[in-house]
Amino acid sequence: MVEKTEMRMAELARRSGLGVPTIKYYLREGLLDPGRLTSVNQAVYDTAHLERLRLIRALSKVAKLPLNTIREVVQAIDAGPSALDAMAVTQDALVGNVAAEDLNEDATAQLNRVIHARGWRCQHGSPAHLAAVRAVTEMNAEDLTVLAGHLDDYAQAADAVGRIDVHAVAQASTLDETIRGVVLGSILRRPLLDALVLLAQQHYANELATPVDGAPPR
Amino acid sequence: MVEKTEMRMAELARRSGLGVPTIKYYLREGLLDPGRLTSVNQAVYDTAHLERLRLIRALSKVAKLPLNTIREVVQAIDAGPSALDAMAVTQDALVGNVAAEDLNEDATAQLNRVIHARGWRCQHGSPAHLAAVRAVTEMNAEDLTVLAGHLDDYAQAADAVGRIDVHAVAQASTLDETIRGVVLGSILRRPLLDALVLLAQQHYANELATPVDGAPPR
Repeated sequence: MVEKTEMRMAELARRSGLGVPTIKYYLREGLLDPGRLTSVNQAVYDTAHLERLRLIRALSKVAKLPLNTIREVVQAIDAGPSALDAMAVTQDALVGNVAAEDLNEDATAQLNRVIHARGWRCQHGSPAHLAAVRAVTEMNAEDLTVLAGHLDDYAQAADAVGRIDVHAVAQASTLDETIRGVVLGSILRRPLLDALVLLAQQHYANELATPVDGAPPR
Repeated sequence: MVEKTEMRMAELARRSGLGVPTIKYYLREGLLDPGRLTSVNQAVYDTAHLERLRLIRALSKVAKLPLNTIREVVQAIDAGPSALDAMAVTQDALVGNVAAEDLNEDATAQLNRVIHARGWRCQHGSPAHLAAVRAVTEMNAEDLTVLAGHLDDYAQAADAVGRIDVHAVAQASTLDETIRGVVLGSILRRPLLDALVLLAQQHYANELATPVDGAPPR
């Protein structure tokens, strides 16, 4: 299908799923580049505008991020050309601030052993890293050593999920579309994975209670 | 270590991490059985009381469930002897109500194909099942077919996580301790897995950007 590459404001609104006043607001705020003027008060927009709006919509309506944070993500993309930097800024925006105090040194050491064992090249001290240390700290505080003992097993499952996430969105053609995939993927895939884990819990609880005939114990 | 099996209220409070007025409130509400009276206004409690309070504390302080829901979980345990029923009630309490309207038939079919392929014996129509259908519905609505196409890969990762969860908590000696493990596991393991996935995303994004020398593309 050949896509129409230029469009007026009304079509931009329809295809982005945003209202005209909202789009004009993003133009005023500098989140969206001005269109190409065709007369003194008419402009046309192209697919780059559409993709930027689809990204902003994901950041705003789905991830519920405030305008300042959306601006940081958009600026990181425009500062280019590194997709990695834009992804890091996006991930940080999605995780938000994690208080670094009260983080347990044992938990940090436990997590870092797992990261090292997996060979993960990840940003130590990033919000995601702090969030993981906090989670291990809280498990330890609640005397959940039985779960904390399976940290590497969980990391192995997380490895599979993160790999699918990244490789799936890396297929997008533009950076705006890739970052939109990261945002929507993080926000929408999370409840999916949570719910799938619950279904798997049901299955294994059933299996413990009533083993399937002939199936070896797992 | 030989545990002291009988204790007075003050020790029960100390070991459960709850205040005396809170424990008295749970006694009045019938969530905790009365102790054994040793005089007209003195009672002693045993480890069953302590485990029940540790469970209630997990449901109330960590899972932030309201008293009525805590009562349902406790009653399901006392109705015994099925650990499965108690786990199902607990899981439902943790997931909460999921609106069944607006659920997409395509999404239901997509999910059920994955459940069938995995051989999961799980409760169709349970809150967890509805939550999974909702998540797939929302991914489809956001045009995230790229992620929805990996549904079975995510289910495989979820299978590993659910299996670790269940087998880890199944090691507990009493049903109260098992259910406490389910509650704390669900609440505290979730942010851990989320954060680990983010770290794995960082790793695979790094790998896409700068492949490790000699490592085969994965």
